[in-house]
Amino acid sequence: MTSGNPPIAGDTRLFAIIGDPIAQAKSPALFNRLFTELGANAVLVPLQVPAAQLSVAIAGLKALANLDGIVVTVPHKVAILEHLDLLGDHAQAVGAANCMRRLPDGRWQGEMYDGAGFVAGLQAQGIQCADQRVFLTGCGGAGKAVAHALAGAGIAAIQLVDSDPQRQHELAQQLRAIHPPLQVSEGGPANTDHDLAINCTPCGMAEGDPLPFPIYALRPDAIVADLIMKPERTPLLLAAEARGHRIHLGRHLLENQAALVTRFFGLQSSHLATVTTPIPGENT
Amino acid sequence: MTSGNPPIAGDTRLFAIIGDPIAQAKSPALFNRLFTELGANAVLVPLQVPAAQLSVAIAGLKALANLDGIVVTVPHKVAILEHLDLLGDHAQAVGAANCMRRLPDGRWQGEMYDGAGFVAGLQAQGIQCADQRVFLTGCGGAGKAVAHALAGAGIAAIQLVDSDPQRQHELAQQLRAIHPPLQVSEGGPANTDHDLAINCTPCGMAEGDPLPFPIYALRPDAIVADLIMKPERTPLLLAAEARGHRIHLGRHLLENQAALVTRFFGLQSSHLATVTTPIPGENT
Repeated sequence: MTSGNPPIAGDTRLFAIIGDPIAQAKSPALFNRLFTELGANAVLVPLQVPAAQLSVAIAGLKALANLDGIVVTVPHKVAILEHLDLLGDHAQAVGAANCMRRLPDGRWQGEMYDGAGFVAGLQAQGIQCADQRVFLTGCGGAGKAVAHALAGAGIAAIQLVDSDPQRQHELAQQLRAIHPPLQVSEGGPANTDHDLAINCTPCGMAEGDPLPFPIYALRPDAIVADLIMKPERTPLLLAAEARGHRIHLGRHLLENQAALVTRFFGLQSSHLATVTTPIPGENT
Repeated sequence: MTSGNPPIAGDTRLFAIIGDPIAQAKSPALFNRLFTELGANAVLVPLQVPAAQLSVAIAGLKALANLDGIVVTVPHKVAILEHLDLLGDHAQAVGAANCMRRLPDGRWQGEMYDGAGFVAGLQAQGIQCADQRVFLTGCGGAGKAVAHALAGAGIAAIQLVDSDPQRQHELAQQLRAIHPPLQVSEGGPANTDHDLAINCTPCGMAEGDPLPFPIYALRPDAIVADLIMKPERTPLLLAAEARGHRIHLGRHLLENQAALVTRFFGLQSSHLATVTTPIPGENT
């Protein structure tokens, strides 16, 4: 993570990631490695933007004529929407964006690749989504993004669980409206019906957290995935591994999302040759 | 110029250079090489800030909690003053700043190292300033900065020439007030009295420009310096070289200024071991 940065000259195009905190972000290393591999004269830098400063910071960043795009992370993914002139399909559906780019006409377009990154991460690990039956817990921003992307990638069914029944129901209704063939159910445990069980809650980040959902009823061939990146192996993943399940790590989302966002930024990546997921918003 | 960039991670501290245009700027390569040599977890990126956008851009940059300092170049060196909370001595004297840093209390301090960079460049080339008799043409921002720094470095006399008699006289009066032992004269040609003749006008940047001043009356051992960086050898320097004068290039200013500004930014540079010039503002 400490090599492969592109050289920086006066004519280097600039990209940034905004968040608070930002010191833990892996995106600068990931994106700069991609830029270097592409031979792009571009660099991505971390910017720590406190929530209260988002408006003034974004106005300032838009005033930088050589800044072409911004990756948006916690806590700005929803608040950024009011600073965007138009949204890609997934940002529209999820109500949040994880990146924005300057269009040739000067407008700023936002899009949400958290879900597409998760799906691309599955595919990169040889896990196909078509016709899968999915259990997903956590219907906040991350869960919404993942659910929409899985639906777009052709899963057959999804069972949603959230501690907030209204949030759970809203996502269910939205999925039913946008993806009519998808079977959407609400509540209940992970069980023998599921091929893939995904944790989209923050449960597992803090030491001593309980499992976000019980896994004893899953079939042995079910895959267990967690969006949490730190620790890399959450208690959920450790428990699943102990029971013989194949697991899928949180970092695969970020690693594969970087290539998608790099393409959204207009920098073509050879990494994308292996990604067969439709890129939301790529024709807009 | 294309290697030696520091690795960029989430916790990398950020510095920037603002200007318009910015594509030609050599500072990103110079500073990043210094940062790398220092082992500093820091990076400097070029930001193209149009003059009309300076206020909104600066407000935005100040809102970035991991941005610690900004190098300021054309056309912002004077306009930046209204965005600074306090000024170092040289910025105060010159009425312009070429860099700014965030102080621990959150205020922003500006300073002007164009002159100190020129003096450090002379010293790095083995040219001492003490007791020198100087001819200087061009009493704009660059000339002011150089004149003040030379006066601070102990030259004995300076003869100022500018196409604008009022600008010439104002700088002369200011130098007399701040540096009483310095002999200050106005107008007249470069002649046998001078040890060092310096061009601080833009004359020589454009093809077909005449010489900024005649050199035929200089002593053979007089040194001829030009602040212009492109072309590296201006018609003035070529003519001086043809007559057997030692010449001093514009790029030495920038190369040596980067180390001074890096120290102003709080990053200690081993390069500075060779610099004996007092650093303006270093105790403020």
